[in-house]
Amino acid sequence: MSKSIREQFTAHTLAGVDPTSSAGVKNKEKALALVESLGPLFREQQTRLYANQDRAILLVLQGMDGCGKDGVVKHVVDLFYPTSVRVTSFKAPTEQEQEHDFLWRFRQHLPSPGTIAVFNRSWYEDVGIAKVHNLAEPAVIDERYGLINDFEQEVAGSGITVLKCFLHVSYDEQRQRMLDRLADPTKRWKFKEADLEERRFWLQYMDVYDTAIQRCSRESTPWYVVPADHKWYRDWVVSQLVAETLTELQLEYPVPHLDIEALTKRLTSD
Amino acid sequence: MSKSIREQFTAHTLAGVDPTSSAGVKNKEKALALVESLGPLFREQQTRLYANQDRAILLVLQGMDGCGKDGVVKHVVDLFYPTSVRVTSFKAPTEQEQEHDFLWRFRQHLPSPGTIAVFNRSWYEDVGIAKVHNLAEPAVIDERYGLINDFEQEVAGSGITVLKCFLHVSYDEQRQRMLDRLADPTKRWKFKEADLEERRFWLQYMDVYDTAIQRCSRESTPWYVVPADHKWYRDWVVSQLVAETLTELQLEYPVPHLDIEALTKRLTSD
Repeated sequence: MSKSIREQFTAHTLAGVDPTSSAGVKNKEKALALVESLGPLFREQQTRLYANQDRAILLVLQGMDGCGKDGVVKHVVDLFYPTSVRVTSFKAPTEQEQEHDFLWRFRQHLPSPGTIAVFNRSWYEDVGIAKVHNLAEPAVIDERYGLINDFEQEVAGSGITVLKCFLHVSYDEQRQRMLDRLADPTKRWKFKEADLEERRFWLQYMDVYDTAIQRCSRESTPWYVVPADHKWYRDWVVSQLVAETLTELQLEYPVPHLDIEALTKRLTSD
Repeated sequence: MSKSIREQFTAHTLAGVDPTSSAGVKNKEKALALVESLGPLFREQQTRLYANQDRAILLVLQGMDGCGKDGVVKHVVDLFYPTSVRVTSFKAPTEQEQEHDFLWRFRQHLPSPGTIAVFNRSWYEDVGIAKVHNLAEPAVIDERYGLINDFEQEVAGSGITVLKCFLHVSYDEQRQRMLDRLADPTKRWKFKEADLEERRFWLQYMDVYDTAIQRCSRESTPWYVVPADHKWYRDWVVSQLVAETLTELQLEYPVPHLDIEALTKRLTSD
């Protein structure tokens, strides 16, 4: 019972993590209430983080189509004030971005001190889809794991706590979510036939993600594999990971050097 | 009673707007409930806006220290999902920014199609603090009003609805808020002695803002002057302005050309 949430969900491989798991939470209602109850803690810690202008948080959301990256933003990231949080969704790199090394575009969006950044997709696309679809030479892709490890160490060393979450959804659940998108006129615009094509590469994707998780797990930048077939469980896990991280930073309000009495006097008489 | 909220709060001068007003709302509790009740509308319209990738919204928050720009972000902008909203706070321009024309840095943060941008301070600093503290030649500053009008017309013409809100707080209420900051250890870090210095220029600031509002009010990019002594009234007004704007865009979900039956069949058998 004394195992932290981060220890509990740290994984060095995808194998053995059951996407349908809901271990540790009784039911949906309980999970929703627990997530919601973290709002005050999120906002308090966010304010302290910002006040100190020292540390920062980077939440990386990775996973297959329909795994719920947007859902986590809508239900977990939403607990923060919008003031010092920035969500960036990474699509296929633009021409300008392609002129730089693959990590360049992510560097542009790293959180500044005191803020929280959320990356919807990340540099793992460059060892994910890039590998599945041979978008670069095998040797080039192979070299990236080392570059990623160095980059993540550098980021962590600069005071940014990195939370890499792989939202682990099953093949069957992805089908169900795609069917739901097709059936619902308010969600249909999200459906892309290309996503259906990508499903054919499911096993290759599982394989490349497994490799990435195996090769890019360091003590200061581990991977968290989040069972994501139950949306409420996924949100509960991510919210707990963030809450634990924020709490362990032990943030206090800075105490400015002010002559409060003199300033108060000056204000009241102006 | 048929006057829209936007008509009601459009102003061509600061004179005549009472910062202590709470016209149209019974009391604080009522105001808070009304703001909160707009959440579903905000999120629904935000999703439609994003789905269409066509129009965008730019909410500009301007006003004196302590007028509640952050408060509006925390209580009104917070009603949106964090997915497609981006808040940018503009401080004194960096050296790199100063190498460009004064509008350059704001262009970098204009909302992309389908999204909502919130500017905490804006190009009005360049005819505000710049004028009060003689940060540029009078002729240079004078020329800026025209450049601002052209810029805003261009932005509006590109499909971005611009909502310029001047949060109008009184001299006495600013004092009270500064005293509150001093007294509260969780807010004291926000207090800057420089802000107290700026209070001495209050009348000059009122004058330059009045000029800006007079010279930069066009039909498609009017100024809204928001009475801001009551935080709950300020939030109510801004939330209503945003809600009305979103509603009038008459956004519908796009209808993609998909053979739903064939796709469903393909998915269920894979």
